[in-house]
Amino acid sequence: MLGKYLNTVREKTPLVHNITNYVTVNDVANVLLACGGSPIMADDINEVEEITSICGGLNINIGTLNERTIESMFKAGLKSNELNHKVVLDPVGAGASKLRTETAIGLLNQINFSVIRGNVSEIKTLAFGKGSTKGVDADISDSITEETLGEAINFVKEFSKKTGSVIAITGAIDLVADSERCFVIRNGRPEMSKITGTGCQLSALITAFVVANPENTLEATASAICLMGLSGELAHEKMLNEEGNSTYRNRIIDTIYNATGEILDAGAKYEIK
Amino acid sequence: MLGKYLNTVREKTPLVHNITNYVTVNDVANVLLACGGSPIMADDINEVEEITSICGGLNINIGTLNERTIESMFKAGLKSNELNHKVVLDPVGAGASKLRTETAIGLLNQINFSVIRGNVSEIKTLAFGKGSTKGVDADISDSITEETLGEAINFVKEFSKKTGSVIAITGAIDLVADSERCFVIRNGRPEMSKITGTGCQLSALITAFVVANPENTLEATASAICLMGLSGELAHEKMLNEEGNSTYRNRIIDTIYNATGEILDAGAKYEIK
Amino acid sequence: MLGKYLNTVREKTPLVHNITNYVTVNDVANVLLACGGSPIMADDINEVEEITSICGGLNINIGTLNERTIESMFKAGLKSNELNHKVVLDPVGAGASKLRTETAIGLLNQINFSVIRGNVSEIKTLAFGKGSTKGVDADISDSITEETLGEAINFVKEFSKKTGSVIAITGAIDLVADSERCFVIRNGRPEMSKITGTGCQLSALITAFVVANPENTLEATASAICLMGLSGELAHEKMLNEEGNSTYRNRIIDTIYNATGEILDAGAKYEIK
Repeated sequence: MLGKYLNTVREKTPLVHNITNYVTVNDVANVLLACGGSPIMADDINEVEEITSICGGLNINIGTLNERTIESMFKAGLKSNELNHKVVLDPVGAGASKLRTETAIGLLNQINFSVIRGNVSEIKTLAFGKGSTKGVDADISDSITEETLGEAINFVKEFSKKTGSVIAITGAIDLVADSERCFVIRNGRPEMSKITGTGCQLSALITAFVVANPENTLEATASAICLMGLSGELAHEKMLNEEGNSTYRNRIIDTIYNATGEILDAGAKYEIK
Repeated sequence: MLGKYLNTVREKTPLVHNITNYVTVNDVANVLLACGGSPIMADDINEVEEITSICGGLNINIGTLNERTIESMFKAGLKSNELNHKVVLDPVGAGASKLRTETAIGLLNQINFSVIRGNVSEIKTLAFGKGSTKGVDADISDSITEETLGEAINFVKEFSKKTGSVIAITGAIDLVADSERCFVIRNGRPEMSKITGTGCQLSALITAFVVANPENTLEATASAICLMGLSGELAHEKMLNEEGNSTYRNRIIDTIYNATGEILDAGAKYEIK
Repeated sequence: MLGKYLNTVREKTPLVHNITNYVTVNDVANVLLACGGSPIMADDINEVEEITSICGGLNINIGTLNERTIESMFKAGLKSNELNHKVVLDPVGAGASKLRTETAIGLLNQINFSVIRGNVSEIKTLAFGKGSTKGVDADISDSITEETLGEAINFVKEFSKKTGSVIAITGAIDLVADSERCFVIRNGRPEMSKITGTGCQLSALITAFVVANPENTLEATASAICLMGLSGELAHEKMLNEEGNSTYRNRIIDTIYNATGEILDAGAKYEIK
């Protein structure tokens, strides 16, 4: 069922504007090309509105935010909203510094995000962080396990309801939900956390998927998450003993490059709750 | 015939100052090392003149330009001109935003470039863009095919005459010309466009080649373009079914690392018009 | 003997704050993950104190310094000193511009570094550079060979005494010394210099190693240097004829990912003078 959203990406070649960090930006560009999208990186205040206007969607990643680029994130995000473009937020490190927390929450307050993707700690910071005007009632543990799954599902649905965004929490189990339905995804490998930027890559993939599938934001996000996790699994099967995280990074992007809707349908592991 | 220009690069180890984008900068550094050159990246206004002075040439790439680095591009370019160093311009995204267009044209107006390399759309923007003082008479289609080749050759020669720079337009067919001669190059693979930064890498290679071969800017540029395209072909022959754009990127740089003048002479596909 | 310091890194997962250049930052992040550490990159003046406070150590690399990030380097370094964290300096390009030389010497004067790692030229610049208040009496040649080894050992011990830092000079022969003991390390391959950023990667590794082994800064630094060099050797053995510097980069990080204390003990080549 989720494979068709990948096919649409390959048919439409969505152009994605990325304001992202300099650590993983090269992999972000290559993974967008691998899935069938097309990347543009631009973060100067004097061009972000124009650049985002020619794109289909915007991926904001605060991984190496600074005073200059924060302004550009707001400006590009507001312009994208005005144009009804898809906008995705990756609140990297929210909670680790006041600057990150306040920037992420400020973005959340001023911009309508189609999707917000982070780890459980980042998403909790957005939901409960100081200054948040979008506090939610549900609580959530610091890791999502089979035991805490029920409360976590309630939390993401509730947070989606408050924000109006599809919420994706990725980790050993991935959750992606709107206010009513939650995809519980069990693709992926723990070794993926030993590669820098798999989260950044995923947020870029999600942007391409929701741009290409504008009527199905929830399903397209779930599809991108399954693709990333499944590619991590398939790439891992090919790993030789002597290989490590650098080659694994290459193999995952290669696997996404060769992925098809059929492969994704055959390997996606999810249930809807 | 073009292989000897690669040999000269390996003999001279040209030091190249790059003011370039943060997306593809790592590949740019590695490809410069692969061809026998040596990279320095420096973009602070307070050091670019000194850094460019100790180098043989300067590669200006506007891929992620910002207010701070734009100033540095002008300062470094003017200093390089003063020192009679080779300067190469890669006007990434010219036409996509006013900032890019105006920066590229501003650079073109104030700095003498040895070589300008871009895709057809970027080069057209430089030639016809608003505010350009270097308009050319010849027109050019949006893609260079066998049918439009004649007019395209006239265009690049004309634009070279107006600018005094060697002009390189890369795509399915690559053209590189001064005012009198045009190399028509048919190396390369379409899959190279699925790797981020092959254009950026090529502009860096060109810089190393023209620094090492100062009396033969046109031929050295053609040699670098043949090397990039041929390496894309040779690397593609080694690709396994399961491999994709990430591994292809590595294999192309590896192929350049192992290239010799003989290999280049045997594989270069060009004619001079 | 040095293998146990790697084991400690794997046990403790030291969190390393990096203010580093945008050329090699992705490899720096991946090599930190490969050795068992965890990377954070953050360079905005408004968050560096907080970020460095939650980390175990700080790696300052001036490879693409600019006015904005230089301020952050000072602020983060002073905060780290206040917290008694380990701080490592990689003075990339010191001597190549006044900005680099003055920044490196300014950092050296205001911040207590646990370790300073550079090539012979960079370390000489720190020791003898204009404006240095830490001049040393010993002199040193521009390359460390068996013939100049004695004077070089005296130099690094003397410079360590003056600065209070462990001093590491890396090249064909690596030296790492405090005021009394000098490890002379003969691991590594000349081909490693054809990969951009092996030095940057090494400085990051050193930071992880000294954070995880706070009582043995000298030995932990030597262990990181042996690991890097040995991984360069082991990775080189696996290189196929058609492979070059891009694949070599991946293989070295992969080898570090798979390294164990036993492998390091078996392959480390050093003597203590």
